[in-house]
Amino acid sequence: MRILIINGPNLNLLGERETDIYGNMSFDDYLEGLRNKFSHLHIEYFQSNVEGELINKIHEANLEFNVIILNAGGYTHTSVAIADAINAIDTPVIEVHISNILAREEFRHKSFIAPNCVGTITGFGLDSYRLALEYLK
Amino acid sequence: MRILIINGPNLNLLGERETDIYGNMSFDDYLEGLRNKFSHLHIEYFQSNVEGELINKIHEANLEFNVIILNAGGYTHTSVAIADAINAIDTPVIEVHISNILAREEFRHKSFIAPNCVGTITGFGLDSYRLALEYLK
Amino acid sequence: MRILIINGPNLNLLGERETDIYGNMSFDDYLEGLRNKFSHLHIEYFQSNVEGELINKIHEANLEFNVIILNAGGYTHTSVAIADAINAIDTPVIEVHISNILAREEFRHKSFIAPNCVGTITGFGLDSYRLALEYLK
Amino acid sequence: MRILIINGPNLNLLGERETDIYGNMSFDDYLEGLRNKFSHLHIEYFQSNVEGELINKIHEANLEFNVIILNAGGYTHTSVAIADAINAIDTPVIEVHISNILAREEFRHKSFIAPNCVGTITGFGLDSYRLALEYLK
Amino acid sequence: MRILIINGPNLNLLGERETDIYGNMSFDDYLEGLRNKFSHLHIEYFQSNVEGELINKIHEANLEFNVIILNAGGYTHTSVAIADAINAIDTPVIEVHISNILAREEFRHKSFIAPNCVGTITGFGLDSYRLALEYLK
Amino acid sequence: MRILIINGPNLNLLGERETDIYGNMSFDDYLEGLRNKFSHLHIEYFQSNVEGELINKIHEANLEFNVIILNAGGYTHTSVAIADAINAIDTPVIEVHISNILAREEFRHKSFIAPNCVGTITGFGLDSYRLALEYLK
Amino acid sequence: MRILIINGPNLNLLGERETDIYGNMSFDDYLEGLRNKFSHLHIEYFQSNVEGELINKIHEANLEFNVIILNAGGYTHTSVAIADAINAIDTPVIEVHISNILAREEFRHKSFIAPNCVGTITGFGLDSYRLALEYLK
Amino acid sequence: MRILIINGPNLNLLGERETDIYGNMSFDDYLEGLRNKFSHLHIEYFQSNVEGELINKIHEANLEFNVIILNAGGYTHTSVAIADAINAIDTPVIEVHISNILAREEFRHKSFIAPNCVGTITGFGLDSYRLALEYLK
Amino acid sequence: MRILIINGPNLNLLGERETDIYGNMSFDDYLEGLRNKFSHLHIEYFQSNVEGELINKIHEANLEFNVIILNAGGYTHTSVAIADAINAIDTPVIEVHISNILAREEFRHKSFIAPNCVGTITGFGLDSYRLALEYLK
Amino acid sequence: MRILIINGPNLNLLGERETDIYGNMSFDDYLEGLRNKFSHLHIEYFQSNVEGELINKIHEANLEFNVIILNAGGYTHTSVAIADAINAIDTPVIEVHISNILAREEFRHKSFIAPNCVGTITGFGLDSYRLALEYLK
Amino acid sequence: MRILIINGPNLNLLGERETDIYGNMSFDDYLEGLRNKFSHLHIEYFQSNVEGELINKIHEANLEFNVIILNAGGYTHTSVAIADAINAIDTPVIEVHISNILAREEFRHKSFIAPNCVGTITGFGLDSYRLALEYLK
Amino acid sequence: MRILIINGPNLNLLGERETDIYGNMSFDDYLEGLRNKFSHLHIEYFQSNVEGELINKIHEANLEFNVIILNAGGYTHTSVAIADAINAIDTPVIEVHISNILAREEFRHKSFIAPNCVGTITGFGLDSYRLALEYLK
Repeated sequence: MRILIINGPNLNLLGERETDIYGNMSFDDYLEGLRNKFSHLHIEYFQSNVEGELINKIHEANLEFNVIILNAGGYTHTSVAIADAINAIDTPVIEVHISNILAREEFRHKSFIAPNCVGTITGFGLDSYRLALEYLK
Repeated sequence: MRILIINGPNLNLLGERETDIYGNMSFDDYLEGLRNKFSHLHIEYFQSNVEGELINKIHEANLEFNVIILNAGGYTHTSVAIADAINAIDTPVIEVHISNILAREEFRHKSFIAPNCVGTITGFGLDSYRLALEYLK
Repeated sequence: MRILIINGPNLNLLGERETDIYGNMSFDDYLEGLRNKFSHLHIEYFQSNVEGELINKIHEANLEFNVIILNAGGYTHTSVAIADAINAIDTPVIEVHISNILAREEFRHKSFIAPNCVGTITGFGLDSYRLALEYLK
Repeated sequence: MRILIINGPNLNLLGERETDIYGNMSFDDYLEGLRNKFSHLHIEYFQSNVEGELINKIHEANLEFNVIILNAGGYTHTSVAIADAINAIDTPVIEVHISNILAREEFRHKSFIAPNCVGTITGFGLDSYRLALEYLK
Repeated sequence: MRILIINGPNLNLLGERETDIYGNMSFDDYLEGLRNKFSHLHIEYFQSNVEGELINKIHEANLEFNVIILNAGGYTHTSVAIADAINAIDTPVIEVHISNILAREEFRHKSFIAPNCVGTITGFGLDSYRLALEYLK
Repeated sequence: MRILIINGPNLNLLGERETDIYGNMSFDDYLEGLRNKFSHLHIEYFQSNVEGELINKIHEANLEFNVIILNAGGYTHTSVAIADAINAIDTPVIEVHISNILAREEFRHKSFIAPNCVGTITGFGLDSYRLALEYLK
Repeated sequence: MRILIINGPNLNLLGERETDIYGNMSFDDYLEGLRNKFSHLHIEYFQSNVEGELINKIHEANLEFNVIILNAGGYTHTSVAIADAINAIDTPVIEVHISNILAREEFRHKSFIAPNCVGTITGFGLDSYRLALEYLK
Repeated sequence: MRILIINGPNLNLLGERETDIYGNMSFDDYLEGLRNKFSHLHIEYFQSNVEGELINKIHEANLEFNVIILNAGGYTHTSVAIADAINAIDTPVIEVHISNILAREEFRHKSFIAPNCVGTITGFGLDSYRLALEYLK
Repeated sequence: MRILIINGPNLNLLGERETDIYGNMSFDDYLEGLRNKFSHLHIEYFQSNVEGELINKIHEANLEFNVIILNAGGYTHTSVAIADAINAIDTPVIEVHISNILAREEFRHKSFIAPNCVGTITGFGLDSYRLALEYLK
Repeated sequence: MRILIINGPNLNLLGERETDIYGNMSFDDYLEGLRNKFSHLHIEYFQSNVEGELINKIHEANLEFNVIILNAGGYTHTSVAIADAINAIDTPVIEVHISNILAREEFRHKSFIAPNCVGTITGFGLDSYRLALEYLK
Repeated sequence: MRILIINGPNLNLLGERETDIYGNMSFDDYLEGLRNKFSHLHIEYFQSNVEGELINKIHEANLEFNVIILNAGGYTHTSVAIADAINAIDTPVIEVHISNILAREEFRHKSFIAPNCVGTITGFGLDSYRLALEYLK
Repeated sequence: MRILIINGPNLNLLGERETDIYGNMSFDDYLEGLRNKFSHLHIEYFQSNVEGELINKIHEANLEFNVIILNAGGYTHTSVAIADAINAIDTPVIEVHISNILAREEFRHKSFIAPNCVGTITGFGLDSYRLALEYLK
C-alpha cells in the first residue's frame, strides 16, 4: 500500500518555529517514526509552499498512490484550485491539521478542501498524521 | 484508563436508519468490537436524545473518566450549553462525527463544540470512534 | 389508520395563555372534537417541553403510526436534532403551526423542520391540525 | 360562498411540465374535481403570468369574493406589489404552494406574501388547494 | 413575596469550575447568604441542565411566585422555547448573568430571552442575583 | 410645460383602501386640485399595476413631457427594469411617495429607482406630488 | 408661524467648497432669498458641526418653533442620538438633503433620522429647503 | 432550425439611448445582418417590457423553436418567474447580455436565469447574439 | 466613597418627554431621592448631549471618583470613542439603561460600551441607577 | 492575428477526469481542431497550475498577442492577482468557462476576473473557446 | 511650510494611560522632539475629544496649513462627518495611528477617513507622526 | 543593517503600466535612489508573481535580514499562507502599498497580512518604501 503525505505552505518550518502551536519536532524526524511504526506501508513525503506545485503533485499521485494525506496549511482556507484537484482524481484524500483550526481565527474555520476529502482529522498535533494512517488499517 | 463514549440525538438509531449515510452496523455491535480491540481500556457508553442529559453526563464524567469521546449529533451545531459543559470540566473531550459534516448542509459546518475539544475526527464512518481511541495509545 | 399529534414546548398552555395569538380553547377539548369528526382515524396525542423527549417520541412513532402531525413550537426555529429525527424515520410528518409564523418575529421565519416534512400548514389557528387530517382523506 | 382561485406565473403549465415536481394532472381537470367535491361553493379560477394582472384581479375580487386562494408562483418570492395588493383589500387570502418551497432553493424560502395572508399551505401537491377549501368548512 | 431563582445549564457547577469567570462560591452557600439578607422574602431555587425542565418550571412558577430571577446560561443565546415560556406567563422575569456576556464571545451577545424580561443585570458576579432582589424593594 | 404623473401598483385604490396610511382622497379628486393650483402646467396622469406598462409609458413620455413625477409603489423596491427605463430617457424623473417609506418595513427602505432620479420626496401624503410640482417653479 | 432651519456638519462651507455637488451659493444668501419669498414665515437658522449642539438646539426648538427643517449632514448616517432627540420633541421635523444621498456612497443610503421625521426631501439642491417650506403652505 | 431571440425590458430602445453602453445600432438593423449571415437559420424576434409576456412567449416557443436566445434585461436580476419558465420548457435557452454585467453595479452580478440556461455570453456588445448563433453551428 | 453619575444625550429631558418609555420623574428629583437613600455616598451628577464632553468628564472622573455610573443614551450604540475613554481610565464604570434596550429597535442591541464596563443593568426604569448603587454596598 | 489561449489549474486533466462535467476530449485534440477551423489565426496555448506562472504569461503576452482567451479555472473565484495582471496589460482578455459556473456551487458564482475582461462565455463546453475565437471574426 | 497635527478623542491621555498600547511618552514631549528634528517646518498641534471641534479645526486649517496630520482616534471608525470635512478642504490630510488598528478589534478595521486621505501610516507607535513628516521632505 | 524589499505580483510592471495609479518610475530606478539615500543600509530586492516563492523568500530572509519591507500586491487580500509565513519568522515585516488601498475596490480593504506586521504605510506612491526605511532610523 502506497501512501503520500503532502504538506502545504510553511509546514517546512515544523519544529523550528511557532513551536507553541505546532510542537518542536521536525517533520523529518516525525516521518521516520511513522515509517518505523507503519513498516508495512510505503510512505512518501512532499512539501511545497507553491499552491500550483501541490496541485501538480496531487495529479501525479493519482497514478501512483492509494491514499493521500494532505495538510494544505493556509491554502486550506482559500484554495478552490486545490479542492478541484482533489475532486479530479480517484485516489482518496484525508485532510489533516496539526492545530485545532476551529479554535483559531475565524478565517481558519472555512475549509474548501474538506467537502472533497474522505474525512478530516484536526487538532491532535503531529498525531493527526498518525491517526490518518491508523484509518488505513 | 477509563474512556466514556457519548452519543447525542438520533444516534440510537445507528445501523437501523439512513444507512447510506451512517452505515448499517448497530453501535452496540461496533462497541463490542472496539472493546475487544482495545481490551486494555475500560470503555463505557452513554446515549441520550436530551441535551440536558448529555450535559449531566459530561459533568459526571469529569470525576470518573480520563477521556470523553463525544458525537453530539445535531446538537453539535446549536448547543452553547454543551460547549460550556466541556469547558467546565477537566477531562479532555474528542469530537467525532460519522459522516463528513463539512460535505453536508451548510448549517452542519458550524460546530459550537469543536473549539473546546482536543481535536475533531470527522467523516470516517464508525471508524471515527476507533481513531479517537488510537489517539490514546 | 393511526395518527400521532405531537406538540412541542409551551403548547401545553393552549387555551390558557396568550389567547390573543393562540385562541382560548384547550388542546384537550379541541382534540375531542377532532376525534369525533375523524372517528375513522385512531388519533393519539403527545406533548413535551423537552426537545429530546420529542425526538424519542418521533423514533417510537416510526413503528406505530402512519402519520405524525408535528407542531414543534419554538424548537421549529432552532432544532437540527428534531429535523434529523424526522429524516431518520419512514413515517411521514406534517408540520403545523397555529399562528402565521411568517407574520411574526424574523427568527420565526426559519424552520429547520420544514424541509424534511411532507408539507406545512400555518396560520389557521387550531384548524391547522384539522387541515392536516383532511389531507389524509 | 364565492371563492376565487388565482394561479400565478407558469402554473398554466400544470400537468404538462416538470411533472416530477408538480404532478401530471392539469389544473382544469383538478378544478372540476374540486367543484364536484365542494358543490356548495361557487369557485372561479384565474391564471396569469403577468404580475400586474394578478394585482388587477386581486383588486376586483375584493368586491365579489369571500375568499381568495392564491398560488403566486415565482412572484411569491419577489413581489412587494402583490403583497401590497393583498393588504389593500378586505377579502382574506390563503397562500398555497404545490411543492414544499422550504425544501427547494434558498430564494424560494422567502415569501413576501405570507405575512399578509390568513395562512399558508405548502407541499401537499394539488391537495394544497383542497385543504384551503376545507378550511372554509 | 415569593421569589423563584432558576439557574440553567452548567450553573450547578458554580464554585467548582471555571472559578476565574464565575467565582469560587457554591450557589448554595450564596443562596443562604441571600436568604439571610432578604429574610422578608420567600426564596426558592431550581436548577436544571434540561431546557424543557426549565420551561416546565417557568410554567409552574406562574401560579406560585411573584417574580422569577432567571440565569438561563447557555440557553440564553439559543432558546426560542424558553423565551416563549416567559411570554406565556404573567409572573415577571428578571434576567441575570454572572459574567459580562457582552465582553465574551460574539455568540453570547444575543439573548433571545431579554426582550421578554423586565430587565437584565449582567456582569456583577453572584451579586447580579442580589441586585435583582434589591429591585424588589 | 408638460408634466406626466405616473402611479404604480395599487395606487389606483387611493382614497378607498388603507386610508390610515394613504389618506381618503381619491387621486382623481386630488389631481383636479393640482391642476387648478398649477394651471400654467399641462399635467397628465397614468396609472398601471403592470411593471412593463409603466416602462412603456416612461419610454413614450421621453418624447412628450418635460418632467415625470413617479410613484412606483411596490416596484420601487424590486424593479431594476424601471430604474433602467429612467436611465434610458432624457426627461428628468422625480420620485415621490405618499407615506414615509423609511419608517415602514425594512424591505421598503431600498429604492432601485432613487439613484436615477433628480430627487425624492417622501412622507408628505398626497402633498408629496404637490411639492414635486413646486420644484418646477 | 415660526420655522427653524438646522444645518449639520460641513454645511457651513456651502457655496465655498465641493461646489459641483452642493452648488456655489452660500447658505446666507440663499436664506435671504427664502425669507423674502416666504415673508409670512419667521425663519431662524442654526448651524453646528457638533452633534451634541444640534441635539441641544432640537431640544430648545421644541418650545419655540412650529417646524424644524433639518439637514443633519454626515450625522444623518451615524447618529442614534439625533434621531432620539427628534423623537423626544413634539415639533415636527422635515429631513432635507441637498444632494441625492441615494445616488452616492452606500454608507449614505442609511438614515437614522428619517423614520422619526414627517418626511424627507432629497436631491433638489438648495431647493430642498424651499420645498420643505412649501409643504407648510 | 428555428431560433427565437427574446429581448426584455428597455431593449426596444437599442441604438437610440445610452449608446455609450449599448452601441448605436438599432436591433432591427442588427437582426437583418444576422439573418443574412445565418441564412440557413429561421430567426424570429420578440421584445416586451412586460415580465409576464416574456413568460408567455417562452411557453409558446417551447412548441415551435429549437433554441431561444434570451436577453432578459433588468429582469435577469430579479425574476424567479422567468427562471421558472425556462426550467418548465424543453427548448434550450442561451442567455446573452450586450454589456459586461459583471463590470457594472453589484445588483447586476446576480442572474436568476443563468443556472437554468445552457450557457451565458456577456459583454461582447450586439455580437453576443451572433456568438449565440455561432454556437448552433 | 465618591460616585459620579453621567447621563448622555437626551437624558436631560427625563420626566418631560416620552414618559411612556422613560417615566415621568425628572432626574433631579430622582437624584435627590438617591442621595437621601445612599447618604453615606458622595454622588455627583453630569449630563451632556456632546459626545466629547462625556469623554472629557470620564477622563476627569478618573482622578476624583471611585465609580462611574454611565447611561450613554444613543451614543451607547455608536461611540467607539466613549468606549475607548472607559478603557483608558482606572475607575470602574457601570452601564445602566432605563428602558430594556434589547426589547427595542435592532440598532439598540449593540453596545460598544458594555465590553469595557464592570456590568450592565438595563430595563428597570430609573431604578437601574439605584441598583448600580446597591452594587457598591 | 496572434491569439493566446491560457488554461489555469486542473485543466491539464481535460478529457481524462470528471468527464461528466468537462467532456472527454483532451484539450490538445480540441486545439488541433480549432487551429484547422481558424487557420487564418496564429493560436498558441499555455497551461499552468501555478497562479504566478499564469500572471507571468499574461505579462509576456502583452507584447506578443492580440487577444488572450483565459480560463482561469479555480483561480477565477479567488485571485485578485490575476485580475490585476489583466488590468495591467493592453491586450484584451476574453474569459471562458467550460461548465456553467453559475449553475454550480455558490463560491463559483464570483469572478474576480470578469470585470477586467472584454466579456465572458460560460457553459458551452469546449465550444466556449471556439465562440471566443468567433468573436474575433 | 506649515503643518497641523490634529489628535482626536482620548489622545490627550498619551503617555499616561494604556501605555502598553500607546507607549509612555506624553505627546507634548514627543512634539518637542519632532519640532527640533524638523526645525525647518512650522508645526502646530490641536487636540479635542469633540467630533465637531475636530471638524471646525479641519475647516480653519484649510486656510492656514499646507498639510494636516490626523489621528482621529475612535472617530476614525464611525465619523462620516470628519471624512466629509477632509473632502471639503484643499489641504491634503495624512492619516496616522499609533497602534496597528488592523491587528485589533474588528470594528477598528474600518476607516471612514482613509479614502479621503493621501495615505495612511499605522502601527509605528509615535513614530507614525514622524514618518508623516518625513513624507514632506 | 540588512533590509530586504519584497514585491509581489504585477509589481514587476511598475513604471510601465497603469502609470496613473502607480507612477511611471521603474522600481529599479527607484531602488537605486533609495540605496543612495540610505547608503548606511544594505538593501536587497526580490520580486515574484508566485505566492509560494514569496513565502520561500520570507523564510530565507529570517536568517539573513533585520527587516523585511513587503508589498504583497494582490496577495495582500487573499493569502493566509503569506500571513502565516510572516508569523512564522522573527524578522519584523513592514507592509507597504503604493496606492491608497482603502480608497479603491472593497475587496482591497481587507489585508490578511497587516495584523502580523509591525505597521502599514499605504498611499504615498513609491515614497511608501522610503518611509518604511525612515522608520529604521
